[in-house]
Amino acid sequence: MEKIPNIYEDFSEWYQYVTLKAELADYGPVKGTMIHRPYGFALWKQVQKVLGNMIEEDEVEDVYFPMFIPYSFLAAEKEHVEGFAPEVAMVTQAGGEKLDEPLVVRPTSETIMYKTFPNWIHSYRDLPLKINQWCNIVRWEKRTVMYMRTSEFLWQEGHTAHATREGAVEDVMESAKRYNRFLREYMAVPGYMGYKTEGEKFAGADFTVTIEALVRNKKALQIATSHLLGQNFAKAFNISFLDENNQTQHVWQTSWGFSTRALGGMLGAHGDEKGLVLPPRMAPIQIIIVPIFRTEEDRVVVANYLAGVEEMFKNAKIRFKTDWGTGTPGWKFNQWEMKGVPLRLEVGKREAEAKQLSFSTRLGKKVGYAMESQVYKEIELLLEEIQAEIFRNAENFLLENTVDISSEKELVEAMESGKAMYRAFFKDDTKRAKELQEKYKITPRVIPFDTIDQRGPDFITGEEGVPTIFAKAY
Amino acid sequence: MEKIPNIYEDFSEWYQYVTLKAELADYGPVKGTMIHRPYGFALWKQVQKVLGNMIEEDEVEDVYFPMFIPYSFLAAEKEHVEGFAPEVAMVTQAGGEKLDEPLVVRPTSETIMYKTFPNWIHSYRDLPLKINQWCNIVRWEKRTVMYMRTSEFLWQEGHTAHATREGAVEDVMESAKRYNRFLREYMAVPGYMGYKTEGEKFAGADFTVTIEALVRNKKALQIATSHLLGQNFAKAFNISFLDENNQTQHVWQTSWGFSTRALGGMLGAHGDEKGLVLPPRMAPIQIIIVPIFRTEEDRVVVANYLAGVEEMFKNAKIRFKTDWGTGTPGWKFNQWEMKGVPLRLEVGKREAEAKQLSFSTRLGKKVGYAMESQVYKEIELLLEEIQAEIFRNAENFLLENTVDISSEKELVEAMESGKAMYRAFFKDDTKRAKELQEKYKITPRVIPFDTIDQRGPDFITGEEGVPTIFAKAY
Repeated sequence: MEKIPNIYEDFSEWYQYVTLKAELADYGPVKGTMIHRPYGFALWKQVQKVLGNMIEEDEVEDVYFPMFIPYSFLAAEKEHVEGFAPEVAMVTQAGGEKLDEPLVVRPTSETIMYKTFPNWIHSYRDLPLKINQWCNIVRWEKRTVMYMRTSEFLWQEGHTAHATREGAVEDVMESAKRYNRFLREYMAVPGYMGYKTEGEKFAGADFTVTIEALVRNKKALQIATSHLLGQNFAKAFNISFLDENNQTQHVWQTSWGFSTRALGGMLGAHGDEKGLVLPPRMAPIQIIIVPIFRTEEDRVVVANYLAGVEEMFKNAKIRFKTDWGTGTPGWKFNQWEMKGVPLRLEVGKREAEAKQLSFSTRLGKKVGYAMESQVYKEIELLLEEIQAEIFRNAENFLLENTVDISSEKELVEAMESGKAMYRAFFKDDTKRAKELQEKYKITPRVIPFDTIDQRGPDFITGEEGVPTIFAKAY
Repeated sequence: MEKIPNIYEDFSEWYQYVTLKAELADYGPVKGTMIHRPYGFALWKQVQKVLGNMIEEDEVEDVYFPMFIPYSFLAAEKEHVEGFAPEVAMVTQAGGEKLDEPLVVRPTSETIMYKTFPNWIHSYRDLPLKINQWCNIVRWEKRTVMYMRTSEFLWQEGHTAHATREGAVEDVMESAKRYNRFLREYMAVPGYMGYKTEGEKFAGADFTVTIEALVRNKKALQIATSHLLGQNFAKAFNISFLDENNQTQHVWQTSWGFSTRALGGMLGAHGDEKGLVLPPRMAPIQIIIVPIFRTEEDRVVVANYLAGVEEMFKNAKIRFKTDWGTGTPGWKFNQWEMKGVPLRLEVGKREAEAKQLSFSTRLGKKVGYAMESQVYKEIELLLEEIQAEIFRNAENFLLENTVDISSEKELVEAMESGKAMYRAFFKDDTKRAKELQEKYKITPRVIPFDTIDQRGPDFITGEEGVPTIFAKAY
């Protein structure tokens, strides 16, 4: 086996190596695009299933809107078009003819959806309107970083309309909490949840709530965002309703999205020198079984024993695979470790005859059980322990790399000491944020909710500020 | 309530009316596009769930390939580009710049997938390769017929590569049978399964297997197609493998797809003068509960009784909704009938006090049960009976409208008598098929498998022919 690039010394090389060699993805032929292979796409299917259920449970209904948006729609909301125009792809020819108006391939669906909302919303009885779609999105990129940065990516986008600002704000918070729960409980990705600064919020929003995670290369990754759109789009698209007093009012809106980029965050948050580390709740294969034998006679003994083990895993709905391939056991161990499988079960003649189950966890522990009908419960617990351990490791990494600073000097020291996230009192100011970005390549990532009530002197100007986390962004 | 257009006299008006009024869909802003609303999109979600499971069970793995295809890829297989070039949409600008090579928005993914296959296929051990993707597809249309004909539609496309022609043929047949099973058992849509003629097969295929259904307007609708691609693309894209004797060979390929068009077939096959008729296995709402009361006191009695009924439905995983809306019961009955809900439960004070369940089926039967803990089993059976009845009605319609003809004179008579599908011995000949199309607006739709062994004189030339079904196509 080739040597895996060192994750700590050259994260980019490591990341590219594992995404390709673990057969998660391939580069697409057009710059900026990627191919989701079965092992990698299974991760997205798990997102669709679990996060999709959470969204459905909150009474959001799935829809599908067209991908092509007339350019004039995009232009209807001023900030929105300024934000997205530079990165759109445009269809100018179709059916052998030049089109009268170019069509934008959706960079997000606010405009096309909201153009239709006036047909659906008439009275307060039609509110709240809560819809969601899973689809592909195009924002032009010339450089591909698998999952993290691709011209075409997959996501879900939720869009809601409410009678009151309070209703809309509540929905934004519900959405952010749902994302945070999914990230923590399934992807084992901890992050700081809070507001985006003015300069970093969504184009056309009143405010944006984000979750900022930390990748192994010590760069912050903005994962899921939820926006309070206020009445900006409602006014641009004339979305109004008759309230209970028969008065016409504009609706209050939200939108929120979770994309394949989050998979990049998950892969980058948990990897190690052996390759990927997949949290059991996300892993397409939770247990890889490696049969070990030299003679045909031994192979039969192992296979007979495994039949019962596989039956048990199957009934318990544990996702497993038995690798009967031609490689040596050692090669297989490396391969499946690189692919991030949480548990490995090694079965030779000795284990078969003794009816033993000898596991190795991806994090390096050995655990053995006697094979009996209820042992799958122990194995399920073991998988949950691995899940928790992966989360703890990522959380420790996040906390160890976050440092409080109270002056520019401390910022420089923190950067030199290798810390990644710098928490400082900051008075939000887009111009000053830009200056910091030019000088230190850092940007204000998030104003965390858990310290939102604190106030103190801005770490540079001394004006009253609020705790804000700065970091280099992905 | 407005009057529903007559399905028998003006199917197009009826179809447009019900798709809009039942809130299945809306027109999109760009010509040829449609918006899938929650009630309609739920039908597609059911396809994805059930057909998706069937595909997974046959060991096909889900993937996702980029939507943008360099024009040069499309041009690599001669027949393929001739077939698709006239209807593609092209991105010529992106990220503020004119692109060097225009990008085709996928009209199907053969070329972009097969360009990658040589990276994945090296030896016979890598075969068969079986992948599938659910995605959006663009084929330019200027006229929208909801589901049936839209510029952008949704589908799944399966692609497989095999070591032998036999392996590929077997896969084509498995795919067609899977589609037919889903159509019959879930969508309650019967059809003729068989080969496409040379002139109607997929651009780049050796042969195409289709299922042709019949819509209420007596037009044939090609629903699902499965193609034997042979080695045509393998040669164009150089997809080869080392066989067991260490010889290099080209792979044998298949592709097969099932799209949102099938939903149009289902809606059009079962509708009646009251609106949609949805088969229970597909219906987003299987039972609509209409509470009937005049006083607040009665409302409470009904609501208390319904709590237990709803609990039972929920536990039995029956999809139901209770309409507490403001309309009159009569208005609600019409509304939910128009929306095609298979079963209606009317509950007034009398039913509540007598603990009765009084159902009306969408097909006009009344059925009553006593409310007791196991009665959901009877209701499940009732839903299955409705499913079977809907299928039988559609099958009778198909059979009644199919007629054997043995001469051009009989064809004219059959057309005049209002029959829809004309079965004749035909010696496949693209030029003659075109002449028949010009003269009678009919095309050869399918050479059915169930009569594939029969031979007889061509209904016009007298040459040896095989039973072929002609019809006007959607």
